[in-house]
This record gives sequence, C-alpha cells and structure tokens, in this order.
Amino acid sequence: MQDLYSKLGASVNKEDVHAAIQNLDKGIAPGAFCKVLPDILGQNPDMVNVMHADGAGTKSILAYLYWRQTGDLSVWKSIAQDAIVMNLDDILCVGATENFVVTSTIGRNKRLIPAEVIKAIIEGTEEVCENLRSHGVSIYFGGGETADVGDLVKTVIVDSNISCRFPKSDLISCNNIKPGNQIVGLASFGKAKFETDYNSGIASNGITLARHVLLKSEYSKDFPEAIDSHFEATGGYGGKFDLLDSILENHKNLGMGLLSPTRTFSPVIKALWEIIPRSRISGIIHNTGGAHSKILKFVEGVRIDKNLQWEVPEIFTIIQKEAEIGFQELFQTFNCGVRLELYCQENDVDKIIALSKEFNIEAYHLGKVDYSGGESRVNCSLSNQTWSYVNPH
Amino acid sequence: MQDLYSKLGASVNKEDVHAAIQNLDKGIAPGAFCKVLPDILGQNPDMVNVMHADGAGTKSILAYLYWRQTGDLSVWKSIAQDAIVMNLDDILCVGATENFVVTSTIGRNKRLIPAEVIKAIIEGTEEVCENLRSHGVSIYFGGGETADVGDLVKTVIVDSNISCRFPKSDLISCNNIKPGNQIVGLASFGKAKFETDYNSGIASNGITLARHVLLKSEYSKDFPEAIDSHFEATGGYGGKFDLLDSILENHKNLGMGLLSPTRTFSPVIKALWEIIPRSRISGIIHNTGGAHSKILKFVEGVRIDKNLQWEVPEIFTIIQKEAEIGFQELFQTFNCGVRLELYCQENDVDKIIALSKEFNIEAYHLGKVDYSGGESRVNCSLSNQTWSYVNPH
Repeated sequence: MQDLYSKLGASVNKEDVHAAIQNLDKGIAPGAFCKVLPDILGQNPDMVNVMHADGAGTKSILAYLYWRQTGDLSVWKSIAQDAIVMNLDDILCVGATENFVVTSTIGRNKRLIPAEVIKAIIEGTEEVCENLRSHGVSIYFGGGETADVGDLVKTVIVDSNISCRFPKSDLISCNNIKPGNQIVGLASFGKAKFETDYNSGIASNGITLARHVLLKSEYSKDFPEAIDSHFEATGGYGGKFDLLDSILENHKNLGMGLLSPTRTFSPVIKALWEIIPRSRISGIIHNTGGAHSKILKFVEGVRIDKNLQWEVPEIFTIIQKEAEIGFQELFQTFNCGVRLELYCQENDVDKIIALSKEFNIEAYHLGKVDYSGGESRVNCSLSNQTWSYVNPH
Repeated sequence: MQDLYSKLGASVNKEDVHAAIQNLDKGIAPGAFCKVLPDILGQNPDMVNVMHADGAGTKSILAYLYWRQTGDLSVWKSIAQDAIVMNLDDILCVGATENFVVTSTIGRNKRLIPAEVIKAIIEGTEEVCENLRSHGVSIYFGGGETADVGDLVKTVIVDSNISCRFPKSDLISCNNIKPGNQIVGLASFGKAKFETDYNSGIASNGITLARHVLLKSEYSKDFPEAIDSHFEATGGYGGKFDLLDSILENHKNLGMGLLSPTRTFSPVIKALWEIIPRSRISGIIHNTGGAHSKILKFVEGVRIDKNLQWEVPEIFTIIQKEAEIGFQELFQTFNCGVRLELYCQENDVDKIIALSKEFNIEAYHLGKVDYSGGESRVNCSLSNQTWSYVNPH
C-alpha cells in the first residue's frame, strides 16, 4: 500500500534512488553513516575526508509563504540553518567534530525571490556559522552560488555542502552497532543552551507531508508557485490552517513552529568525546529520512527495542491528527522529538544523558540492541501502542 | 534598457546578488577568482582551501526535453559533466590542479524524473571523474543527495560542489592582472584530445536565453513543466526549432549541439604548470556569467583590447540570429568560443598556444592589457565591428 508521503511525491527511504546507485563506490568505510574517502585533500594515510551534500528541501516553501504573508525576512535564516545542519549532523555520525567548510547553493526564481531574500539566506549562513563557532564548533563559510533558474525552480531551493578532514582513528562506523548496545536518544525539541528560541523539533524531513495536510487550500490559489501544478486537479493543499494561526503552545503561530530551525547536536557531540572514548560508541544515527527506521540501513540480524518515552511534541501530534496516519507512518516520516541516537555501552548511558542535559537538551535511555535470529527489526512502544519496522533491504 | 536575458528572468552579472552580499567576508585572497580560505581542513599555514558550488543551471531542462523526445539517457551524463566543470574550471583559475573531491546535489520532481534518470546522472558523475583521472586530473566523487522536492522543482536541478586544498604558494590571484599582460584565449569548441565527441562550445551559461529563442512553442504546450508558468501568457518558448532538427554541421541535431558537455581545461592547465612557473601567469579568467566582460570584476583602471579572431561557432551565431541581439549582448551572455583566458607574459604566449594545441584545443593571442586612465573597460573587435564593456562596479 502506498503511504500518504509517497502519494505526495516524496518518500521516506528513497528505495528507487538507493537501488539505482547500489553499485557505486561506497568509500573506505561502507558501514559509516556518510561516505568516507581516503585523504584526497591531504594525502595522509592517517586521515580521512568526508564531503556531504543536503539541503532545506521544501521547507523553503514554508519560509516563502510566511515571508509573503508577513514580510518577515528572519525566516530565511532558519532555512540557512536547516541546510547547514542537515549536513553537519549527518557528519557528526562519522565522528568528525571540527574544522568544517560549508558552501551554499541557491536556485531561485528571480521574478519572485528578490535580492533581500538572497541576502537574508547568505548572511544567515554566515551568522549560523558564527554562532556555532561561539559554541566551540569550528565551521567556516566557503562561499556559494546563486543561480537564476526560474524555468526550473518555482520559488527558491537552498542546499549546502560541508567538507571535513579528520583522523582515521576518530572514525565511527555504524556497522559496529551490535547486540548489547544501549540506545540514548537526544531530544530535537525544547530550548538548548545554544539556542535563542524554543525549538519545535520539526527539523527538515517530512515537510512535504506537513505542508499538504496542514495548510489551507487558499495557499494553493493565492500562491500557485508554492505547489506542484500537478496538485491543482485535486484542490492543492488539503489542510485547514493558516500559518498565522496561534495553535501551538510554545510558538507565536503555526508558521513559527514549522519553521523552527533544525537543531544541531554538534556542541553536545564535541563535548561527548571529551568524556567518552570514541571506541565506546558503536554508532550514531541521525534520524532524518526514514526517521526511527533509519537505523535499519546500517545493521543486520539485530532486533532494536525502543521505548518512545518522551511526550511527542505538539507539532507532530497536530500533523498526525490532520494526516490521519498511525504512529508507524508518523515515526518513519518525522523524528517526532528524538533526532540523534547514540549506540553505547550500558555504563555510559547515564553519563551521556547528564551531558546532554548540561546543554539543556533532554535525553532518554530508549532501549537496547539484541539478536533478532533473522531479519533486522525495530520494535517501538509508545504508551500502550506497539509497532515495528522491518529491514527495508 | 533591460536586455533580453534579464527579461527572461536571468542576468549575466547578477548585480542584485553581488550588491546583497558585498559586506560578506571575502576570504584571504579577495582578488582571486574564487573565495580562498585559510587551511581550515588541515591547519597548515602554508596551505589554503577552496570549496566551490555551482551547477548545470537550466541546461537540465534541455536534457529533460531531449530525453522525453528520444528516450536517450546519455544526455544526463552531459549534465553531470556540466555541473562538475562549472566548478572545476572556476577553481583552475586560482591555481589548484589536483586532489579534488566532488559532490552532487540533485533536486527532482519524482513524478517526472524516475530512478533511471537519477542513476544516469550519478553514474555519469562517477564516469566524468574517472575520465578526468585517466587524463591526469585527480578528482574523486564524495557522494551526494537526491531530494524529492516536487513542489519546488518542476523537473530536475543538478548541482555540484568541489573541495580542494593546495599550497598557498600555488595561488593565482586575478588582481595581479596588469598593463603589459598578454591575453591567450583557449577555445571551448572542437574536439579536444580528451573528448569523445565534437564540442559545440556552448557550456552552461546563457541557456535560458538559448532555450527561449530557439525552441518552438509546442514544447511549452507539450511540456509545461519545462518553463516558468509565468511565460504561459506570452506563448511560452518563442523559437522555431525542434531539438531533433539537423541544422548544425558538427552535431546530429540541435539538441546534441546544445547539450554538448561543458569542456574542462583542467588537463591543459595541469600541463601548463609544468612548463611555466605560476609567478609568470598574472591571472586566469573563466568566461562564465558575464562571459567576455567577466574580467571587469577583477581589475581596476585597465583597458583590455581583445581581437575576437576565431570563427564564432555555429551554435552561437544561430542563437544570435534568432534572439536578434548584437555582438555586445551575445559576447556578454556566451563565451562564444573562448571560455578560458590566461593573462601572461609576452614571451609565454607562443608556448601556451603550442601547449593547448597539443591537447587539440585551439588557442589565440587575443590582445593585451593597458592603462585606461580611468574606469576599466574591455574593447572587443570582431572583423569590422567593435564594442566595449565598461566596469560594472
């Protein structure tokens, strides 16, 4: 059965893309969260390179609509942060924590996106880097490109790339995740010590679904550039909300909740390596595409039991209600409040939770890894509900 | 007066973007062709880093239309090459010639772009890197991202990023260009020793203009996804040609001429540094956006006299005729046959031309740099016509 997200032209696991590129070179650590290269940039056998590409996806459409409604340019800085963090936090999972270079690639429809928006995105990129540096994460803006591609891009697309180079001995590879590992999850919501506003936890995955089920159809009529013309036949956006509706407890309005910038965990992970040797962390999973089923791309023959013990943030429960989807689909599309999972030793669990709390980020002992005796699976429990994800391989 | 290209939603100099970001940090070599960073990646004071973002722009629309008409997937490899070379040849201009890492960022409308296209682009990226390596240019594919963003991207957008790290002493900075320099231009057309097909010279700039003036309006009706809906009111594409029309001497049809992959000059420049010390080259200009006026972004108080002595390749003369534009606009939008300019010493001119010819790439002694006594300008002469570009600062 095709899920709602697929019907909207997106997919949580991108199976077709993964099948298409399965024969491609996977680098020197095929089990790592990101492709790892030998040290092309320095020709040192003790070093490795990671260069990573990702972006804010269709979250820029939400920024566009909010900006058009309110004139508030500050939303574009959030998009800059989304594009950076979607790269940075993937790279954290392979063990790198410093000396990052980031670029920005913007494709715009010049008719709709004036220079002030480009300026806000690019200056936002610089500001996000400055803020990260002030919290100990050495990341520098290497520049970027703004292309006028109005026949291709309906509004604006914002991508980033990050390069880094670090000691091979620091490398974390997810294929070390094994029975006996404990799982600590770090919260994506709340207000971290290094954040200026309350974070809804939404990040930059599942936004196509969120937009379609939440936004009222007037948006499709007033801003046809904000939706694939394919959807015109079915009435466009199918929700009931205006972005300015005050329906969230912790945000001025729905728009601000949806545009909460993707939190980075980089200050926490940098601090982590000062108290726990890398050899004691078997793997780190960034719950992006595939969310709570993402781990299944990296393990074989294991059963992962997760107790989803936190209160699911309101932004996700609203999406669930409007989308009329079950927890299984919800937690496979959205991080739902936990975006980084550390697979660790039992006697490090409390240390990691305490460290995270020092940054004012909640952390949870979610469960453990066991032998499955067959295909890999993630068993989730939330209050009195349970469901599973089975290895998509 | 607004030129045709601007009316189509693109611009040759992107003045508004440059104005918007003028206060941004310009790196450690503000006069260089690309932003140059200190060695973030290696913390070595004798090394520098460049990380560069660019893409195939709207050339992917031509590939989409050609693929839809013919089923020929090979056009997507050309797009992969465009995205790589638009980065690589910019980086050549700062003196780097080896140890490159490249990523690919693809944004697609999943409804229209199936996995076989993504596979062709990604495998094409790998093949282009392999081919470059077989010609001495050490470039490696670091991976990439394919995002399903159908509400944002009408068909498919293909961008690349390249990272490199090289000795500070190898750095070429365009602000060394000075009166007395001679200019050698390298041809973008023909069949270089490292190419498998005749190259039209078109590269990846000015493609919005080329599409709009060449393609017949039926394309807008049959493939509304291939044009900004804004143009529907004016009838869409305004040309008379089908991509399959055999109107070019050196290509099977117009589509193949327009989709000629952007030539890289990297094997030539790598060989150049073996015969001429970097200190004898004052600057290298990649004639991309702004084309033959591009140099004006990097010089002050100079007059540059260029004798455009080559026969303008047919693809450009056809565009000129259909667009009804003069040489001034043509040579500011397209490289028109010369895409790389080396600013050198008089007694190196013949050596550079001879070296280029070893790669079966024509090269020309275009002219020289002189004092202007005021604002910078480029004076062009072509047969009995002359025109100028004046500093856009």
